[in-house]
Amino acid sequence: MTGPTATPEPPYYVVIFTSVRDEQPDDGYSQTADRMFELAGEQPGFLGYDTAHSDGLGITVSYWQTESAIAAWKADQEHLVAQRHGRQRWYQSFEMRIARVDRAYTFQRSTP
Amino acid sequence: MTGPTATPEPPYYVVIFTSVRDEQPDDGYSQTADRMFELAGEQPGFLGYDTAHSDGLGITVSYWQTESAIAAWKADQEHLVAQRHGRQRWYQSFEMRIARVDRAYTFQRSTP
Repeated sequence: MTGPTATPEPPYYVVIFTSVRDEQPDDGYSQTADRMFELAGEQPGFLGYDTAHSDGLGITVSYWQTESAIAAWKADQEHLVAQRHGRQRWYQSFEMRIARVDRAYTFQRSTP
Repeated sequence: MTGPTATPEPPYYVVIFTSVRDEQPDDGYSQTADRMFELAGEQPGFLGYDTAHSDGLGITVSYWQTESAIAAWKADQEHLVAQRHGRQRWYQSFEMRIARVDRAYTFQRSTP
């Protein structure tokens, strides 16, 4: 399994994407989602992501060094196509929030 | 199903809690988690939350009017007990991030 993703010391930025999918066949969604995670990982300023889905709700948080890195990723040509398909075919609703992380705390259980 | 949770116009604050559970029996976790969501909902300045769990990773994002509302929730007596149990019994690791939401965008599919 993955995560939670480790990130450098704050400040950095986070995109919080919460979504509700249509109740319909996959229709290319999974393949595009995988490709978008791969492509995001190649972007300058990308720090990592965590994603989980349950009870019809998806939450993806991605971490970025700067706001301009987020803006550049939003404007990526392949990503723009995926965003259009998301609105037209895959998502019933979503919320996108951009926030500046000011404080972070890590817990790791010690091995007994 | 629930969410994504609607929130007022930014700015507001978010706590992003990403966690990996121990591979062990529930041990009171689910009951405490339900109680914590109920209790958080009674706190001054609480705006809402979204939560999802898959592949062993949990993501909970909770939204708050102010940083002081987050600090007060962190110091709640019943919450402090739950936090201690979390570190001792339930979580292998977690990351807690506090961030200020500066921008938000909502999408809602129009009914055809």
